[in-house]
Amino acid sequence: MGRKNNENRKHRENRNETGETTGRLEGKNPILEALKAEHTINRVYLEKSSKDPVIGKIYAIARSKGIVVSYLDKDKMNQMSETRNHQGVIADVTPYSYAEVDDILKKADDLGQMPFIFILDGITDPNNLGSIIRTAECAGVHGIILPKRRSAALTPVVAKVAAGAAEHIPVARVTNLTRTIQDLKEKGLWIAGADVSGETCYYEYDYQSPLAVVIGSEGEGISHLVRENCDVLLRIPMYGRINSLNAAVAAALIAFRAAEKREEAAL
Amino acid sequence: MGRKNNENRKHRENRNETGETTGRLEGKNPILEALKAEHTINRVYLEKSSKDPVIGKIYAIARSKGIVVSYLDKDKMNQMSETRNHQGVIADVTPYSYAEVDDILKKADDLGQMPFIFILDGITDPNNLGSIIRTAECAGVHGIILPKRRSAALTPVVAKVAAGAAEHIPVARVTNLTRTIQDLKEKGLWIAGADVSGETCYYEYDYQSPLAVVIGSEGEGISHLVRENCDVLLRIPMYGRINSLNAAVAAALIAFRAAEKREEAAL
Repeated sequence: MGRKNNENRKHRENRNETGETTGRLEGKNPILEALKAEHTINRVYLEKSSKDPVIGKIYAIARSKGIVVSYLDKDKMNQMSETRNHQGVIADVTPYSYAEVDDILKKADDLGQMPFIFILDGITDPNNLGSIIRTAECAGVHGIILPKRRSAALTPVVAKVAAGAAEHIPVARVTNLTRTIQDLKEKGLWIAGADVSGETCYYEYDYQSPLAVVIGSEGEGISHLVRENCDVLLRIPMYGRINSLNAAVAAALIAFRAAEKREEAAL
Repeated sequence: MGRKNNENRKHRENRNETGETTGRLEGKNPILEALKAEHTINRVYLEKSSKDPVIGKIYAIARSKGIVVSYLDKDKMNQMSETRNHQGVIADVTPYSYAEVDDILKKADDLGQMPFIFILDGITDPNNLGSIIRTAECAGVHGIILPKRRSAALTPVVAKVAAGAAEHIPVARVTNLTRTIQDLKEKGLWIAGADVSGETCYYEYDYQSPLAVVIGSEGEGISHLVRENCDVLLRIPMYGRINSLNAAVAAALIAFRAAEKREEAAL
């Protein structure tokens, strides 16, 4: 492939050797959050005919930061869009840089808090990943660890569902989840798995230690080897007939309970 | 349109004057749940080449109930599919019949429980509606009330996201939400709205009364008139920087807390 082709491709979603995704954000919230978080935005595309005041706000902020703004007609915007729901604004950004696990621990340390981390084991649906990132940020989770295989990656669709939260919470990708879990244990973290047959009810657990919570895939739960490495399995009691919670909802219940119990204990 | 055309259309999603949707379920879980719930299934279509054991299980149950089963090739299944994710099985069912608000109250009464109802004010996204139905069923909510306008309806997409829960929880549709709320108040229910600026923290509320919880749309929250009719506004504390929870996650936090507190009080 010649240099010219490479240049043409540079604004499209791209995946380098480590699987990082690059390039584009879409939608009002993700781009507003990216502007606030000082994420490096190279260019903003706005839909010419939009009368949405938020689009006007994005224009003003982008210009005040010296970012190039282009107006395009609707057809062109739709053609560029990967999420099929750009809401009149698309931005070219520098690649998402995944964080390191140590960055997540450092974030907790900087805040003077015991680490609280999510480990996602097999969340392959981008909507679920985006939803978990959004909820985790709202619950004050310090960071998220994903395996490189069998997992959705930080794509524009994920960023859109996360409604800007991906700008504020570090996400690390690791090659070997079991190895990472063992490392975390050596650093003093407890590992709690969310599991329908767990022996400890999630609201009775005290969350008063450095902690990583493993959320498994909806279909299969936590994988065998990861499960063996959990110090405790947390169960969410079910009150109906279906007994199958969405992974993002299970993550939300545990994260908000942990935040609440830690705040209570700090008083 | 001639009779023949009408007949050809009878297996497709259809909407009658009151906006009820009819006709088709897709995916393994929704159809398994429909079979379990004795929902009237007229015919099941299975993908010929599928080796999925769950498809085999659906075949066996359907046959044991005397339901006609047709095997179709993948292309034909894809063509029939409305959700674009049929997982090898599609079923023709009798129309969803929306419940009445009184059916929901009767369900609580039959269980000897104080009513706990969700009122969804402006949830237009089918994914959010499906997710709320699924979570509500898992949390033992007695029923869900939707307005006829400004709301997603019970479509195949919603049923798919709800993962079968729509078979087990009554959903009522009403013309005038404010009027329905006033009726519920006269029947002794308290009305709690989920609101970011609510004065009562959702986990400090006691949930020990007949209760309907109003969940508003993500963009706009609860509408003005409905909000004025709320007895209490429940706030979910935020621990991050985004401060914007998904409506389905907010619903989950409140529903599971209510179930837990009621169970605790019953001990």
